[in-house]
Amino acid sequence: MDDLLERLAGGDRRALSRAITLIESTRADHRERAVSLLSNLPDRQALRIGLSGTPGVGKSTFIEAFGTMLTEAGLRVAVLAVDPSSTRSGGSILGDKTRMERLSRDPNAFIRPSPSSAELGGVARRTREAVRLCEAAGFDVVLIETVGVGQSETLVAEMCDLFVLLLAPAGGDELQGVKRGIMEMADLVLVNKADGDLLGPARRTVADYAGALRLLRKRPQDPDGFPKALPVSAVSGAGLADAWQQMQDLADWRRQQGHFDRTRAAQARHWFEAEVRAGLLAQLASGEARRRMDQLGEAVAEGRAAPGEAAAEMLAALRG
Amino acid sequence: MDDLLERLAGGDRRALSRAITLIESTRADHRERAVSLLSNLPDRQALRIGLSGTPGVGKSTFIEAFGTMLTEAGLRVAVLAVDPSSTRSGGSILGDKTRMERLSRDPNAFIRPSPSSAELGGVARRTREAVRLCEAAGFDVVLIETVGVGQSETLVAEMCDLFVLLLAPAGGDELQGVKRGIMEMADLVLVNKADGDLLGPARRTVADYAGALRLLRKRPQDPDGFPKALPVSAVSGAGLADAWQQMQDLADWRRQQGHFDRTRAAQARHWFEAEVRAGLLAQLASGEARRRMDQLGEAVAEGRAAPGEAAAEMLAALRG
Repeated sequence: MDDLLERLAGGDRRALSRAITLIESTRADHRERAVSLLSNLPDRQALRIGLSGTPGVGKSTFIEAFGTMLTEAGLRVAVLAVDPSSTRSGGSILGDKTRMERLSRDPNAFIRPSPSSAELGGVARRTREAVRLCEAAGFDVVLIETVGVGQSETLVAEMCDLFVLLLAPAGGDELQGVKRGIMEMADLVLVNKADGDLLGPARRTVADYAGALRLLRKRPQDPDGFPKALPVSAVSGAGLADAWQQMQDLADWRRQQGHFDRTRAAQARHWFEAEVRAGLLAQLASGEARRRMDQLGEAVAEGRAAPGEAAAEMLAALRG
Repeated sequence: MDDLLERLAGGDRRALSRAITLIESTRADHRERAVSLLSNLPDRQALRIGLSGTPGVGKSTFIEAFGTMLTEAGLRVAVLAVDPSSTRSGGSILGDKTRMERLSRDPNAFIRPSPSSAELGGVARRTREAVRLCEAAGFDVVLIETVGVGQSETLVAEMCDLFVLLLAPAGGDELQGVKRGIMEMADLVLVNKADGDLLGPARRTVADYAGALRLLRKRPQDPDGFPKALPVSAVSGAGLADAWQQMQDLADWRRQQGHFDRTRAAQARHWFEAEVRAGLLAQLASGEARRRMDQLGEAVAEGRAAPGEAAAEMLAALRG
């Protein structure tokens, strides 16, 4: 264990991989070791960037180009995924790595697909812990990517310093396709594919979103001009350097104003509370409690007990 | 208590009102009495109809006209509301009763607004129990209405035998405004305001939705031709009798096929499980546990403890 921690702290990517496998395990003894490992990590910080975008906006190509730009600038970049669909399909590991061929071979990059788990809460918890492991391993930037389907965005936003929404050029009437709740989480809206024939539409989409963002209520953690919409092209590389500069400026401002630390403190507290709730509910899933739940559930289904009565009986049994 | 139960079973609306107030109370002694009351109710069934529609579709006018039609046919009708917005505004009791003036004075009708509660789960639980009380009080039809905002529809659908979606006439391009998830819950789509100038648009909207419904996957609990779209006018009364006939036909078919009882059994079991979960989490909200949560939460926010470590400590404390 000390050995794993030491190699992890030394930046060893294999140790990082092994540590993430450990925290993803549901075995009780693994979990105990994971909690102990997480409590002893060196206190390093990466810039945590959440990235959301529906399939087809070119997210993998963007991460490949953006990540490579950062590693060429001497930064170490980790990419983690929160993919609710992978809970059924078993993940798209191979797909991701194939689409990010260059980055996946880069010694200063680390790519880890979404863990497969029965529920989004479990995926989120593992990912949050994996972010901490990446930070401990000395990564400078942790990109956490997710697909644009609502709940997973909220979970990712709750573990990030910045939230970036990646979009494709679109007609003005398609603006409504992005849910308001997701727009409200975005610090930066990047309109991809701003190249060739799509350059004009991309610029118009940027202007549309810039207008839409101005209509949102200003948040305390936003300096003037944020949230912001910008055009980028993952293929030509145009706009990527500017996007990175904007992210750094925003993070710097938030650090100076104290928002950065406040947000991290609130996020940590939120995760503590979420883990207590998950831990409490987990006791229903196995052993004698599970058997009793099934028994009482049958009685309720057959009309032999009222739901509230059976629930009171179950809760009394759990209290011992 | 025996007196309340007796008067309730006798169909006394005041007793019903008092019983609902009792189940809405969060006081521990009230809760105990409520659980006992709910476990001793006579085993009567009403047809539980969920009704969803966004503001502006004429929901109150529809309920007034539809409910009055049913009471005139000799049926006793209860109307309950699940209104997530009322958790903040304190409910729209007066508004509802004013808009349903005739029904609210009808001795065979009972109207109860949404309970105000901190969270939707609490509102849903109270409403589900209120449905049982209305059944015990001999009501034949229980209408559970909610606004079209997503989560509340799911909760209402989980306590109903039929789910009706009320819509206003619209251009074909507005079809997408109804979330797919809500469409998939509907057994009957009623397009209101099929009168005067809007008769044509209403008919076209019915055709549009009929087409959209045909594209959905057939569910085992649907006889041929269902889910179905129909035009109605709450103002002229046109189509209301047909809508009621369709609801009865559907309910009869489901009763014959066993879907009715199966659905109720599954719903009861679902509510039992939801109540156990809610009860488990409730222990975090008060007393020593609450104090300890706050203490550990502070420690995590200040970086003195890792979220997982603090959560493990909290869970150990709860286990005693």
